[in-house]
Amino acid sequence: MKLLELYAKMKGDLNQIERELERSVMDDHALLSDTSTHLLKAGGKRLRPVIVLLAGKFGEYNLDVLKRVAVPLELIHMASLVHDDVIDDAETRRGQLTVKSKWDNRIAMYTGDYIHGKALTIATQLPNPHIHQILSKALVEMCIGEMEQIRDFFNTEQTVRNYLLRIRRKTALLIAISCQLGAIASNADRLTANRLYRFGYNIGMAFQIRDDLLDLYGTEKQIGKPPGSDIRQGNITLPVILALRDPGAREPLLHEIRAIRAHEGFPDTKRAISIIRNSVGGDLADELASRYIQKALKALEGLPDYTAKKNLTDIAHFVGKRNY
Amino acid sequence: MKLLELYAKMKGDLNQIERELERSVMDDHALLSDTSTHLLKAGGKRLRPVIVLLAGKFGEYNLDVLKRVAVPLELIHMASLVHDDVIDDAETRRGQLTVKSKWDNRIAMYTGDYIHGKALTIATQLPNPHIHQILSKALVEMCIGEMEQIRDFFNTEQTVRNYLLRIRRKTALLIAISCQLGAIASNADRLTANRLYRFGYNIGMAFQIRDDLLDLYGTEKQIGKPPGSDIRQGNITLPVILALRDPGAREPLLHEIRAIRAHEGFPDTKRAISIIRNSVGGDLADELASRYIQKALKALEGLPDYTAKKNLTDIAHFVGKRNY
Repeated sequence: MKLLELYAKMKGDLNQIERELERSVMDDHALLSDTSTHLLKAGGKRLRPVIVLLAGKFGEYNLDVLKRVAVPLELIHMASLVHDDVIDDAETRRGQLTVKSKWDNRIAMYTGDYIHGKALTIATQLPNPHIHQILSKALVEMCIGEMEQIRDFFNTEQTVRNYLLRIRRKTALLIAISCQLGAIASNADRLTANRLYRFGYNIGMAFQIRDDLLDLYGTEKQIGKPPGSDIRQGNITLPVILALRDPGAREPLLHEIRAIRAHEGFPDTKRAISIIRNSVGGDLADELASRYIQKALKALEGLPDYTAKKNLTDIAHFVGKRNY
Repeated sequence: MKLLELYAKMKGDLNQIERELERSVMDDHALLSDTSTHLLKAGGKRLRPVIVLLAGKFGEYNLDVLKRVAVPLELIHMASLVHDDVIDDAETRRGQLTVKSKWDNRIAMYTGDYIHGKALTIATQLPNPHIHQILSKALVEMCIGEMEQIRDFFNTEQTVRNYLLRIRRKTALLIAISCQLGAIASNADRLTANRLYRFGYNIGMAFQIRDDLLDLYGTEKQIGKPPGSDIRQGNITLPVILALRDPGAREPLLHEIRAIRAHEGFPDTKRAISIIRNSVGGDLADELASRYIQKALKALEGLPDYTAKKNLTDIAHFVGKRNY
């Protein structure tokens, strides 16, 4: 089944989640509703809610319960994007103005705080404190991931392990707990929840590696912002780390990265991108993404043969697919 | 009993809270531990933990339980200060460099996020979801309060009601739930928890009014930062709103506020402060603060005559006292 068909099939439940997302940020305060609704309207794949619902199929599927997990997870993801945009000084995301550029950094900061708070307000309506604990822990880990990213800006000597630990916190963890919480909220057994967690963790890792590849290999139209924005802000991603190990690419690439770092404003990244594209970095990163997809599929093996298992397999293949 | 004596008497339990506060931000990540510890070391009165512990005396006092409420509440307060400093562009707080000036705004933003997350991680260890709900709701309300403050910057036509709603969210609510959660965590009955909530709410309102008065009437040494910093950033506080109603002060004050707004950098607030001091604004604000203290004392009346009740009374008098 194609991913579009899956979304079509889940449309009823996803629409309910969408309405709940809108409702969650609509009350309270005009400006916060504006900024949050602006974010919501920017769309996105709603990957986390989709995964929550599919994970819920391995237990007692109850949309009223699952939405109290799906909505907070999507909100936490959105909040991390707003705060990200403050850090990245990003003018656009998904082709739309960011909150920080349409309003300002202060408002973007409190919009993120507000959405975090809203997420927890909704999740804590569920009586299971274990769910609250997992969510709070994830918030902490995500912040650490963001701080590691700031710490590692322009660090050309960082290791692959360094990068993997960082994206684990920044991205993979939230997708992992989307699977896990969908299962826990549906009273699935512990083994099932753990398998789903591993599935989510591994597609999350692949997802971030693919995203980092896209920023170097994609077009502005595909990405929704100018390519090379990672390297421009000093975020040394996997393809770059691997390109720096390529003897033919290392010295010229180091030279370009130093030039980007020294440049004020909007440095030209064309030469750096071209060096990376001509190195082994992209292919090696691609291979690693594929390995994570294989691990994700492996994690599904022990689960019963429900349609949801087939759907998760499709999602893994979609995440694993080269899109540039 | 003087407040210092109260702190001395509670020293054992407060030291445990202090150690727990330090421990809560010490693991995880070097830079986040540095920024958070820097914040902790800046000290503060630890008003929220003190209040939690005293409220706990009206139920089954258990420090191990109470610290899982006291530490998160102090952490949430700290996180709000870091994010405040980003907004205020404050270089110092309590005479110490702020995180945003010692590191930078990005790091201050994630330090705040991290501390929020840590707060919830600790509170969610308690099995009572009602506690988690109250805390999450407070986070949302505090953000709304902050956004209202930004919205109302330099709005010289705002009403007293406007101001009161804003400080309710920004300050009073967290002190109110410190009382309430201390009681709930100790299994005090609902009526007691509600009385303590009302006590906290009212001293919180008085506390913020006093703080806003101090910024206009205090010395740099007392405040730990240059006086007039509220009006400098456009935060129109109660004494200013009331001074603007004073026919003799209104026009010259409006003129000064417009000049401050138009000025880039560090505008001179001396004349504005002098106009406010010569108006009825300060006295009227002072009266309102006293009324809140009276309401706080009233809320305590129905509670049993434990020592803790006497201590809370002392705290109310301390908060109500003119300190300039």
